[in-house]
Amino acid sequence: MGGLAETMIHKSVKALVDREDALVEAVLAHEEEMDLLCIEIDDRCFTLLALHQPMASDLRFLVAGIKINSDLERIGDQAVSIALRARTLITQPEVKPLIDIPRMARLAQEMVRKSLDAFVRRKTDLARSVIDADDEVDTLRDQVFRELLTYMMGDPATIPRALDLILVSRHLERIADHATNIAEDVIYIVRGEDVRERGDKELLKGLRRPSDRSGEAPSSLTT
Amino acid sequence: MGGLAETMIHKSVKALVDREDALVEAVLAHEEEMDLLCIEIDDRCFTLLALHQPMASDLRFLVAGIKINSDLERIGDQAVSIALRARTLITQPEVKPLIDIPRMARLAQEMVRKSLDAFVRRKTDLARSVIDADDEVDTLRDQVFRELLTYMMGDPATIPRALDLILVSRHLERIADHATNIAEDVIYIVRGEDVRERGDKELLKGLRRPSDRSGEAPSSLTT
Repeated sequence: MGGLAETMIHKSVKALVDREDALVEAVLAHEEEMDLLCIEIDDRCFTLLALHQPMASDLRFLVAGIKINSDLERIGDQAVSIALRARTLITQPEVKPLIDIPRMARLAQEMVRKSLDAFVRRKTDLARSVIDADDEVDTLRDQVFRELLTYMMGDPATIPRALDLILVSRHLERIADHATNIAEDVIYIVRGEDVRERGDKELLKGLRRPSDRSGEAPSSLTT
Repeated sequence: MGGLAETMIHKSVKALVDREDALVEAVLAHEEEMDLLCIEIDDRCFTLLALHQPMASDLRFLVAGIKINSDLERIGDQAVSIALRARTLITQPEVKPLIDIPRMARLAQEMVRKSLDAFVRRKTDLARSVIDADDEVDTLRDQVFRELLTYMMGDPATIPRALDLILVSRHLERIADHATNIAEDVIYIVRGEDVRERGDKELLKGLRRPSDRSGEAPSSLTT
């Protein structure tokens, strides 16, 4: 599922950058595969829980598995959203050459890969690096926003297309958020405690719920 | 947690509509409460799983509980994001009187309440009605988008504020998506199977993964 999620991210943004409709279709086809895998893994986790009644660390691993499964499926959903926006955007003139969006995509893809690697190898350091990378993604998201804002203000005819590109950057942000959730789950299973909100200052440094305050930055542009 | 989530949605949008900074602070204060409840419920579910090794339907209920817990926390996160956007927006002139955004908020709030009611009383009909309401939210989201697009094209000075309002509508959309996830989990535990992608045509009617294709509509505006 992790590999599939990475492929979907890659292809959806490549569809946009290279203006290739075939890649849009490829992403849509992957979605079905992803959904089937998600159901299968859910079933397996459920069976393991029901039949083997695992204790302590195995139980924690399994519960994290159920959550990660759902994060990966939602990453696939975001890639599908990007592909669908790409489908429309590539029929229209380019607003500008895309540089930061592919950069965000590469970062997000790497975060997904590393978070799963951290899960499999139970490496908290690697998980920590994923959580740190989320700030970079947020910085790029703000950069994309600011730049496209300039285009929109300069030429209102670009507004609809620029808005679609802003929303693409939001989908990538959400993919990075899901990777961050996975990384948090890894730290949780390894440390045996929930670091997300429990006030362990060292761990909490740079750790905030991905989907909350991070939404603040673009607002400040309007002050 | 459900009551708290509803309160947070209500206050965050009221902060925006009534231009009241005190409500922004109230939402931020609720966030901590929410995080603590989330951890407590996670722990309780975990303990139940570990100590009582529940079978079949109880197990399904508990696994759904873990997922719903995380959906509710993320609903709180979205309300916080709305409150933070409100904080900036209320210091600036209004783009337009807000009508559809409060309507979306009421709908989303109702969906959260009904989905939890369906969970507690294991009512699939009620869950189904939540899933149906998601389409209404998506329609309103498109309406908000189209209307604000007109303002932006007409007066580029409104672009930053209008963008913030569009993003508020996206946060509300995501809240409705989480309520839909909860409703899907209810159907899952009651029917004992995953209706989300399994091709039960009758059930799938109007049922799609909330966060995927729903993102498509605004794109079509740019064609």
